[in-house]
Amino acid sequence: MIDLYTYATSNGKRVAIMLEECDLDYQVHKVDLRRGEQKTTEFLQLNPSGRIPVIVDNEKSLVLTQSSAILLYLAEKTGRFIANDSISKAKVLEWFLFHATDVAITSGNAFYLINSEWLEYRESAQRLKDRVYDWYQYFNQQLSENKFLVDNQYSIADIAMLPSVVGNDDVFFDKYAHIARWKDEVLSRPAVQRGLNII
Amino acid sequence: MIDLYTYATSNGKRVAIMLEECDLDYQVHKVDLRRGEQKTTEFLQLNPSGRIPVIVDNEKSLVLTQSSAILLYLAEKTGRFIANDSISKAKVLEWFLFHATDVAITSGNAFYLINSEWLEYRESAQRLKDRVYDWYQYFNQQLSENKFLVDNQYSIADIAMLPSVVGNDDVFFDKYAHIARWKDEVLSRPAVQRGLNII
Repeated sequence: MIDLYTYATSNGKRVAIMLEECDLDYQVHKVDLRRGEQKTTEFLQLNPSGRIPVIVDNEKSLVLTQSSAILLYLAEKTGRFIANDSISKAKVLEWFLFHATDVAITSGNAFYLINSEWLEYRESAQRLKDRVYDWYQYFNQQLSENKFLVDNQYSIADIAMLPSVVGNDDVFFDKYAHIARWKDEVLSRPAVQRGLNII
Repeated sequence: MIDLYTYATSNGKRVAIMLEECDLDYQVHKVDLRRGEQKTTEFLQLNPSGRIPVIVDNEKSLVLTQSSAILLYLAEKTGRFIANDSISKAKVLEWFLFHATDVAITSGNAFYLINSEWLEYRESAQRLKDRVYDWYQYFNQQLSENKFLVDNQYSIADIAMLPSVVGNDDVFFDKYAHIARWKDEVLSRPAVQRGLNII
């Protein structure tokens, strides 16, 4: 049994989708970020940096934070959604990390600045967002040639990316037709639908 | 033989350090970002997103981008600098990705905004930098209890982080004594010195 401490953010959703896809037994503990529950003494004992998601794999007595680390851990634990041969696995890691580092964090930084009280920060946020949309061109190009991001095989690269794309509906349909096609394909998976709706 | 296309940035340096630490045979191809060599037709054929580092593992006919993906690939290829048991490996991934996603990319976004022509962007950049320094507290705390980031074993988490810290000398000595101690320890490794000086 795995305990999942999470909330309805992209970081939280991708872990829930992965747990559902891997058919693992897990229990959801909602950490309401709007109420500041990530800063309670109890939660800070679990993750001192005060952020979700966190999993506890009770079988291993392992407490693990960082959504990308959790996806990689679960992929290795189950042997699923990461290719077995070294070349395909490297390409899964490449797209997974292109998203997890550049795209997701730059989006997150834009979100962080947009939510500040300063109008000037919002200009900067737009500049970062423009950079993200530039990068999405490469994902769109990749998806014009492949059903999923790597080798037509659904992987953690797709799972990591889906929640970010779902949160950007306004942009994607017009400019990134192949991402839009891919999004519908991934969203049609029952495990994805369950993962997106745990909170 | 591995071909490494790189420049003297943090992303480039961590791959060079990893190749040196793994004692792999590689050839350096300098891509001078100041001259825009990352946008030449020849380089864009290698990496359409026009960024360094890129490795070509000729033995496998594999072209791989994204410094974090390259470190993970080389760790798996050689079985080095990533723990073997699943729990320690998960913790290496956790610290590796805490750095690669949150810390490194938020720093990179700040750098991107600072280098713009707009003064307002620089205010936003400082706000992002403050966030990075908050996160460094957790690394400092971890290094107060461990020689290296995970289990007193030097790993890709340390290799990924070193070039960022070296580039932030002004800040670290005062506020983050344990990171400063760790930095000297890592910098004393001959492979690290070689990796930092390939360009």
